[in-house]
Amino acid sequence: MKKRGVSILEIPGGVTAPLGFRADGVWCGIKRSKRPDLALVFSVMPARAAGVFTSNAFKAGSVLYSQELIKSGRAQAIVLNSGNANCATGKRGVADAARAGRAAAKALGIDAEDVLVCSTGVIGKPLPIDKIERAVPGLAASLNRSAGHAAARAIMTTDTFVKEAAVRIEIGGREVRIGGMAKGAGMIAPHLATMLAVITTDAHIEPGALRRALQIAAGYSFNRISVDGDQSTNDTVLALANDLAANPRIETGQEGFRVFVEGLTRVCQELALGIVRDGEGATKLIEVSVRNAATEEAAERLARQIANSVLVKTAMYGGDPNWGRIAAAAGSAGVSFDPLKLDIWLGGKRAMRSGSWVVPEKRKLAPAISGNPVRLALDLHQGKASAIFWTCDLSPEYVKLNARYER
Amino acid sequence: MKKRGVSILEIPGGVTAPLGFRADGVWCGIKRSKRPDLALVFSVMPARAAGVFTSNAFKAGSVLYSQELIKSGRAQAIVLNSGNANCATGKRGVADAARAGRAAAKALGIDAEDVLVCSTGVIGKPLPIDKIERAVPGLAASLNRSAGHAAARAIMTTDTFVKEAAVRIEIGGREVRIGGMAKGAGMIAPHLATMLAVITTDAHIEPGALRRALQIAAGYSFNRISVDGDQSTNDTVLALANDLAANPRIETGQEGFRVFVEGLTRVCQELALGIVRDGEGATKLIEVSVRNAATEEAAERLARQIANSVLVKTAMYGGDPNWGRIAAAAGSAGVSFDPLKLDIWLGGKRAMRSGSWVVPEKRKLAPAISGNPVRLALDLHQGKASAIFWTCDLSPEYVKLNARYER
Repeated sequence: MKKRGVSILEIPGGVTAPLGFRADGVWCGIKRSKRPDLALVFSVMPARAAGVFTSNAFKAGSVLYSQELIKSGRAQAIVLNSGNANCATGKRGVADAARAGRAAAKALGIDAEDVLVCSTGVIGKPLPIDKIERAVPGLAASLNRSAGHAAARAIMTTDTFVKEAAVRIEIGGREVRIGGMAKGAGMIAPHLATMLAVITTDAHIEPGALRRALQIAAGYSFNRISVDGDQSTNDTVLALANDLAANPRIETGQEGFRVFVEGLTRVCQELALGIVRDGEGATKLIEVSVRNAATEEAAERLARQIANSVLVKTAMYGGDPNWGRIAAAAGSAGVSFDPLKLDIWLGGKRAMRSGSWVVPEKRKLAPAISGNPVRLALDLHQGKASAIFWTCDLSPEYVKLNARYER
Repeated sequence: MKKRGVSILEIPGGVTAPLGFRADGVWCGIKRSKRPDLALVFSVMPARAAGVFTSNAFKAGSVLYSQELIKSGRAQAIVLNSGNANCATGKRGVADAARAGRAAAKALGIDAEDVLVCSTGVIGKPLPIDKIERAVPGLAASLNRSAGHAAARAIMTTDTFVKEAAVRIEIGGREVRIGGMAKGAGMIAPHLATMLAVITTDAHIEPGALRRALQIAAGYSFNRISVDGDQSTNDTVLALANDLAANPRIETGQEGFRVFVEGLTRVCQELALGIVRDGEGATKLIEVSVRNAATEEAAERLARQIANSVLVKTAMYGGDPNWGRIAAAAGSAGVSFDPLKLDIWLGGKRAMRSGSWVVPEKRKLAPAISGNPVRLALDLHQGKASAIFWTCDLSPEYVKLNARYER
């Protein structure tokens, strides 16, 4: 994404920041902790809809259900529960997701085909669908413009803070807002959690353009982060666009599309970085940049491999400027490059030049990675492509959290 | 590998178990701990040689040197140092490896082209080649049939025990011996370590057959293990075969080849399992079996993905029978299968049947993985192929070991 002076203004709020969106969150009885576990996001007008779903072959019932519905390119509401992933529940999973969708549709007075469903939480237990059905009417009645935060809170599992973001951009002389909420925090007890994100916008955008924009923005954000390298059965990013900004319709290839994609990418990146910062047991955000690679795909693959290296992550936890592990991880990415041209920087200090250790700087390297975020950069001197990937460090606390046996 | 009653007898010893091999190990001054750090393995006759090397793009000088030499299919000695990986040392790395080889050749009175070189230890520091050159003559003079163990000890880095194995098989009415030593233990301070293995045999075998046999055996052993999923810059497996068993020459496609491969695989698996058991901070060996997959490649990919899952490894450390993480890891392997047919067993107890949790057995699952090794098994009900992969659990101790800053 080349930047040509697009003006992106960060604004407060999340999914209710754009015009015409209402939301709220409540406790419906899934979580024993009595923390909120049911959220509803609603557009006062039917909206264009697009989604990006986990590529895990083992998909939750709610994912299978929403993935099918969203093919219409249209939706008006999203019901999301936390505390139960509706996954590994056999054929019942899709049927339960449909029941949650129908309950919300009935309460909102809209078509069941216009309600998407997301779930996150424990896997292997049937969704307590009766609890959801009982809570949905009250939740629908309480929807409002100020409760985006409550909705964001209700999708949290092991997250320690709410993840929201919103921006305002200008398209064809009209103000357009893009908002979002997400939950992440890695995968934890009792079984596994998930990354979920909901993006709302009042942009007027052609459905195919919305889909394409979401793919691009997710590609530069949610697909560029990892906490532990594991991929969930429930990961979902949904976007609703309800036309209320009354901008000239955005279509791919136009200047307006470019602006929209930049704004959307900003929101998605902010949410994605929130997920990494809140990684289980994480003490530091780590940013891995690869530049002058032959292709962007190669740059991304290298950056991902380094970010997923358990050895790199533990070294960063310990404040060990261990460029050797970075070089070894780069070498194992399946990308061909010339090791004798490789440069590595830790936090702006050069650690390796042309494949050799920059010995005199060694003492200076530890302070270079003592901050937060930690920045690691590689230069391949091979081409002109680059990529950035974000992850967090790996602490003994992460292992303890994830080793805990569900009782 | 189908077994058709091949008789494999385990025998004591390691690299000096086969006829005509001599070895020893000493401290030459690389390790500050004064533990042994230089090993030499020698065949009284020139031997056929084959090798398998790391596919890491960032290769150590010693790897580049040996990889070139071994193209001749012949070698007579291997000099191995621990404490320094001779990696990320620029162009000097290959030159230093050549000096180590020449020093050994001179001391042994053989051609420098017949001496292979391996290094393991710290990366980024030039090899203290003068120390190696000074120590090699004494080491060559002390070579003997009983010091295979001393050689195995001298290649250790963070290993906590020596890894040796040997077997005797019968080919064409003649006894043939295969022995080996290895070091592993994952990747640790100060920079990274490596897996090295040396296999010796007195078999009479055609060079191409030896190469092929080593590829197959490594494929079912060293390529089926992981400690932390990271791949070293120095991983090397070398095999020398010196004909002294006087068996009818082994060629691919023969019954003798099949027997040889089975014996070799047994030695390699024993060494590989030793490496996993000795994984840094490991408390348990984990065996992941996948059966009834469409292809062996798919089965291996699934088993590897599960074995490399940080979430699965932490759960096994904590004794958490978390089949959900196993299912999620399987789903993310990029292998297509029907989740509604997936069965999962933990230590012989069924945890998932046809994609659904086997609820009543839940309480029984924790004891099913409390032993060592832990056995995880998946059935895809898709085809007839299977694969086994080995790993170890991930403990807070691993993180602490690997977070340690080199001072």
